[in-house]
Amino acid sequence: MSIIRKPRIAIDMDEVLADTIDKFIELYKERHQTKVLLADMHGKEFGETLPPHLISSVREYVNEKGFFRDLKVMPGSQEVVKALMEKYDVYIASAAMEFKYSLEDKHEWLEEHFPFISWTNIIFCGHKVLDVDIMIDDRIKNFVTFKGRKLLYTSPHNLLVDGFERVDNWQDIAAKLLDV
Amino acid sequence: MSIIRKPRIAIDMDEVLADTIDKFIELYKERHQTKVLLADMHGKEFGETLPPHLISSVREYVNEKGFFRDLKVMPGSQEVVKALMEKYDVYIASAAMEFKYSLEDKHEWLEEHFPFISWTNIIFCGHKVLDVDIMIDDRIKNFVTFKGRKLLYTSPHNLLVDGFERVDNWQDIAAKLLDV
Repeated sequence: MSIIRKPRIAIDMDEVLADTIDKFIELYKERHQTKVLLADMHGKEFGETLPPHLISSVREYVNEKGFFRDLKVMPGSQEVVKALMEKYDVYIASAAMEFKYSLEDKHEWLEEHFPFISWTNIIFCGHKVLDVDIMIDDRIKNFVTFKGRKLLYTSPHNLLVDGFERVDNWQDIAAKLLDV
Repeated sequence: MSIIRKPRIAIDMDEVLADTIDKFIELYKERHQTKVLLADMHGKEFGETLPPHLISSVREYVNEKGFFRDLKVMPGSQEVVKALMEKYDVYIASAAMEFKYSLEDKHEWLEEHFPFISWTNIIFCGHKVLDVDIMIDDRIKNFVTFKGRKLLYTSPHNLLVDGFERVDNWQDIAAKLLDV
């Protein structure tokens, strides 16, 4: 007998719930007087748009305590996640393990902006080896061994990637997963 | 086409890799002059063996920064995990999310005692919704929706639980998963 359960969704944090790129842009403007435009990032990682002497600093910043604590919330994500929870078992799955000091920051960020997500439904990992039905992520590497439905959340770095079902924003996610 | 990969194992931390109960016993001896014996715990949670006025303190202690940082390593676990990694894709999966301050402690503990485990293979979660083939855990609640092979790691609190394939120690795990 298999257990009857709601379909499960795993939602990524950076670039899906949290605007990490906005933080990078502001930070390099303030600390290095270097202006990066979203248009410069077409198909690139943020670091690839920087002058060579600044590239290594990206890794230092993401390893700083606090970097992930004050990211802006992606527009519409709170309302749509709340609505998804009525139909789906919603998990937040973030590759937080790469940056040890991001763990508490990300936990606190979720407590502040998504207080309706229970601790039981938060997953900090490296590889996303998740038994879920739908995955929303901006990194196709997280889809490699995943057999469920993959929604690629558009981000500058993935603009040149083809062949995936795409969502450009949270309204797209609502249209695909709620109005059906 | 499905991707060929090694079978995946998810290994729990508390009471499987790390001796949380030993820490509790020592802590209550030191701070409360209360002696709990393993024999008192037969089929019970640690807290259930305490005098009533001390029960609520268990939750305070596990929420203290540092509680999970200095746990003893379960005998044989390091060698067997290392050997398992040759045949399996080994993940460490811990329900760390319940105790926010355990995240960094548990990460550092793994870095110290299991430095050969990559950050990519560490998962801190609540519910273990994992796409793995084998799960080693002392809590049957983590097996509820899991369809793979379940190895129940014996711990005082689960001694009265029946009907699961059991391992009593890391030698048992080696015998079941390596010598085949």
